[in-house]
Amino acid sequence: MNYTLTQIPERTLKPRQSGLTMVMDKGLSLREVEDFLSVSAEHTDIIKLGWATSFVTPRLKEKLAIYREAGIPVYFGGTLFEAFVVRKQFDEYRKLLDKYEMAYAEVSDGSIDMNQDDKCEYIRKLATQVTVLSEVGSKDEAKIIPPYKWIQLMKAELEAGAWKVIGEAREGGTVGLFRSSGEVRQGLVEEILTQVPFESILWEAPQKEQQVWFVKLLGANVNLGNIAPHEVIPLETIRLGLRGDTFSHFLDKE
Amino acid sequence: MNYTLTQIPERTLKPRQSGLTMVMDKGLSLREVEDFLSVSAEHTDIIKLGWATSFVTPRLKEKLAIYREAGIPVYFGGTLFEAFVVRKQFDEYRKLLDKYEMAYAEVSDGSIDMNQDDKCEYIRKLATQVTVLSEVGSKDEAKIIPPYKWIQLMKAELEAGAWKVIGEAREGGTVGLFRSSGEVRQGLVEEILTQVPFESILWEAPQKEQQVWFVKLLGANVNLGNIAPHEVIPLETIRLGLRGDTFSHFLDKE
Amino acid sequence: MNYTLTQIPERTLKPRQSGLTMVMDKGLSLREVEDFLSVSAEHTDIIKLGWATSFVTPRLKEKLAIYREAGIPVYFGGTLFEAFVVRKQFDEYRKLLDKYEMAYAEVSDGSIDMNQDDKCEYIRKLATQVTVLSEVGSKDEAKIIPPYKWIQLMKAELEAGAWKVIGEAREGGTVGLFRSSGEVRQGLVEEILTQVPFESILWEAPQKEQQVWFVKLLGANVNLGNIAPHEVIPLETIRLGLRGDTFSHFLDKE
Repeated sequence: MNYTLTQIPERTLKPRQSGLTMVMDKGLSLREVEDFLSVSAEHTDIIKLGWATSFVTPRLKEKLAIYREAGIPVYFGGTLFEAFVVRKQFDEYRKLLDKYEMAYAEVSDGSIDMNQDDKCEYIRKLATQVTVLSEVGSKDEAKIIPPYKWIQLMKAELEAGAWKVIGEAREGGTVGLFRSSGEVRQGLVEEILTQVPFESILWEAPQKEQQVWFVKLLGANVNLGNIAPHEVIPLETIRLGLRGDTFSHFLDKE
Repeated sequence: MNYTLTQIPERTLKPRQSGLTMVMDKGLSLREVEDFLSVSAEHTDIIKLGWATSFVTPRLKEKLAIYREAGIPVYFGGTLFEAFVVRKQFDEYRKLLDKYEMAYAEVSDGSIDMNQDDKCEYIRKLATQVTVLSEVGSKDEAKIIPPYKWIQLMKAELEAGAWKVIGEAREGGTVGLFRSSGEVRQGLVEEILTQVPFESILWEAPQKEQQVWFVKLLGANVNLGNIAPHEVIPLETIRLGLRGDTFSHFLDKE
Repeated sequence: MNYTLTQIPERTLKPRQSGLTMVMDKGLSLREVEDFLSVSAEHTDIIKLGWATSFVTPRLKEKLAIYREAGIPVYFGGTLFEAFVVRKQFDEYRKLLDKYEMAYAEVSDGSIDMNQDDKCEYIRKLATQVTVLSEVGSKDEAKIIPPYKWIQLMKAELEAGAWKVIGEAREGGTVGLFRSSGEVRQGLVEEILTQVPFESILWEAPQKEQQVWFVKLLGANVNLGNIAPHEVIPLETIRLGLRGDTFSHFLDKE
């Protein structure tokens, strides 16, 4: 920190189990990755190469090497896992993870239908190879999952070996946890937290209002994801009560 | 491509006549151009220097040289053509194209009133000097052009020598082809395509929802324009059915 | 300028008293600062390090040195001033300004309650040390300040020693001068201008529609702020009547 202020909430330190910031890289150049890391490496815990952007990204090995050098793990977006599974190419997906020396992977069913047992089986298999994040929630606005089902899915996927479960949003933040207006489904989040440990969930919250909402409800060290590279510094100030939106939240009340 | 997936639609190859991606540069620095090209050169067919941004962009010659080196043609936005025409400086515009060794130019009437004969005359004149893109549609929300008129204008401009006709949107994507909500005027697009060849039209579609809509209607190799530099990789995944929005579109139906 | 066009409004030259463009840096890397300056230095008058982003920005001294080298002054966002004041650390704030050799500072009360006398006292004190910008308007949507009060506050703060008064918006541009729709409160702006000199006010106008509105009402040389780095070139074209939105505004009427 560049100076000292009182009443700043304490942040967890790397390697974090809570207070994680997951950043989405949807096609940065190598130099843009360096620029990003020069500013935000300390505040970034894990990188997702958005959906299947890795399919068309040049110099992928070099990009992965830069992140590795910075000590920040990377994983392919869940849509890539689904693209292999829907084509019955799951074994090739496992080989792909090895080829690129990936230490993390995401299991999701945002764009395909998959029953719970099959999904947990994929988690179990991949967990023998990598650290698994599994995602709950559909990308389809029409598929509303009731709270009890979110809880049941999250618990089952953690038991199957997922390191974290991710609460699905879209890049724009409009389905899953969020109403089409972008508003958070508050009752859903609160009910989930009665049953699933706080630190086991990573909430996708690409929009500022959503980040503010989660920090106010769950504190500076909530796990948040799908953060755009240029929004990591702004998010860090939201976590610390140093942006207008959370300015008064961490101050001593008189 | 970094790995192999079945059921990926075939993309046209450069130099493309369909499947074009036109990118808008509204003031990138030289290094940002290099970064952009290092990731997206293969998926970018032509660059528009947005409206008259070239007037205030430093080191323009050097920027043009970088794009030329990458084999990607560049043209000045149509608003610059209009700025010269409205000031009765058309001859100076022609000299400007020569001075900067431009091989492409746009003819448009988005901000000025121009009758169809005059516009076709400009196209004919410029077509002796450069490859011409002509744009149909007003930037003015109040000017609704009926479908039969869009068709008549597009045909006349292609006959006058335009290489492609562009369906106008704004950078934000809210007029011309689009309702003020950003929604595509579907009936208009379908009616145009009954009369004007698919590969002769370049649709401006800056917003993701619009890109998805065009790819679903017209396939992977639709010509799309006004794409932001950082959205070329995401667009390429939309074209290939590798983003949630078009994930199922290209899969074999059982 | 890269070519000559008639009927382009005359822009003021640096160091400007009107026609200022204030840019918000909310966490650029050193190389991104260089990229930004290589394109926009000529059109940028002053930089704000957004709210308290400076708290978590690495290599702050080096960043400030790059801006200094380019001859562009920098100041910390007003929220940082407020963060020190609310913690009763104002003296430390003054030392901080010295430590980083800041020549400008902002006094604001967007996130805290402060009576007018206290605010003017802070302005007076800081004006002995640096050039002061003071900001009027709350970040809180619920706090509507009537026009006569805006005028009274602006006059008092200028008399207390502020170089410019800033009309508050948010980064997204939705409170203070703007309705929650982003629309400008036109009556408010016009009434303010009957009493406060045009060149003493810097209007925060992060959204394009707002920039267009101010340029149409107040001309090419209105002071505008909270401009995103990549929007400086687009804004300059709006000021010059070289973008569709202001295309006809500066043309001779026949």
